[in-house]
Amino acid sequence: MPKLEFWYDFASTYSYLSAMRVETLAAAAGVTVDWRPFLLGPVFKAQGWATSPFVIYPAKGRYMVRDIARLAADRNLPFEMPAEFPARSLAACRLALLEGGENWTRNVSQALFVAAFAHGRDISDPTVLKRAITDAAPEADSDDMLARSIAPENKAALHLQSNRAVERGVFGAPSFVCDDGELFWGDDRLEYALRWAQVL
Amino acid sequence: MPKLEFWYDFASTYSYLSAMRVETLAAAAGVTVDWRPFLLGPVFKAQGWATSPFVIYPAKGRYMVRDIARLAADRNLPFEMPAEFPARSLAACRLALLEGGENWTRNVSQALFVAAFAHGRDISDPTVLKRAITDAAPEADSDDMLARSIAPENKAALHLQSNRAVERGVFGAPSFVCDDGELFWGDDRLEYALRWAQVL
Repeated sequence: MPKLEFWYDFASTYSYLSAMRVETLAAAAGVTVDWRPFLLGPVFKAQGWATSPFVIYPAKGRYMVRDIARLAADRNLPFEMPAEFPARSLAACRLALLEGGENWTRNVSQALFVAAFAHGRDISDPTVLKRAITDAAPEADSDDMLARSIAPENKAALHLQSNRAVERGVFGAPSFVCDDGELFWGDDRLEYALRWAQVL
Repeated sequence: MPKLEFWYDFASTYSYLSAMRVETLAAAAGVTVDWRPFLLGPVFKAQGWATSPFVIYPAKGRYMVRDIARLAADRNLPFEMPAEFPARSLAACRLALLEGGENWTRNVSQALFVAAFAHGRDISDPTVLKRAITDAAPEADSDDMLARSIAPENKAALHLQSNRAVERGVFGAPSFVCDDGELFWGDDRLEYALRWAQVL
């Protein structure tokens, strides 16, 4: 089966939209999804931004919230902006990167996105992180997983992941990368990315 | 019939995509299109940008060209980037703003977009502008129209138009504004804007 890399940051509203539909669309297209959480912060810094462009450019920020609200309503998705934007997504990203059994990264990522943007919760709060762990893997020891997520080897794994994102040409989220390296940026391009992946 | 304001700049590649399909889609939706050429430059300056973000952020600029090329191919639209990006679109904008008979603004705008992005021509070149005039209105006196386009009253009209864009909340192009003021940004939102306009 062709594979599609799905690069996302847990603070990214448009990544939420993609996270909630990528598996359904990919299954219909006969494409496997490779979930790739990463941190947008360093990528933005490399572009000269100290924070999200939606904060730097308030008109765009206000429009983005309105745009997401309209799209979410269209898709029958709940949507609530967290109080802090962009959310501090480091802890969530480390957690999603752990080895955690089949579909761990996908399941915990969806749980984290639901917490952040369906319920507007603070995903840097350990209580919220633990609930996401339990939602994704009811049998998991959430204290142990949180501890493992901040172990040196997992921090190194995240560093490696961020380097890979840059190597792939990722400059925003969500991004989709096909097996031949073709990159598509934004939830609006998910269908195009799947079509591209299909014919490789 | 409900109306949709279509705000565009002749230097904007995504505006080209919309200019070539907005009439067909609007007709099918039973919506009238109000063509509104304006200058992005002052709007970008207000956001702190001295030029197009596609120039300021080269990774985005490279991606944009690739993205437009893919979309244009999908739509059987020719696409060639002009040598200079962003193009100096002031003269073209003034020309399109003139009173010039039924559908003048639409017809000359499409001719200018075709010159700029189907043929990669320099739309600040008077020869290119004159050809666009003749394409849009074969009976027109192109020298006279060029002269009228730089008359003080037309310069004032462009100034007014740019103020209107800001009042409407426009921060990029293309933008679509419905009768109730709801704004949609980007060629990707044209269908949504038409659906919104339809139910007003």
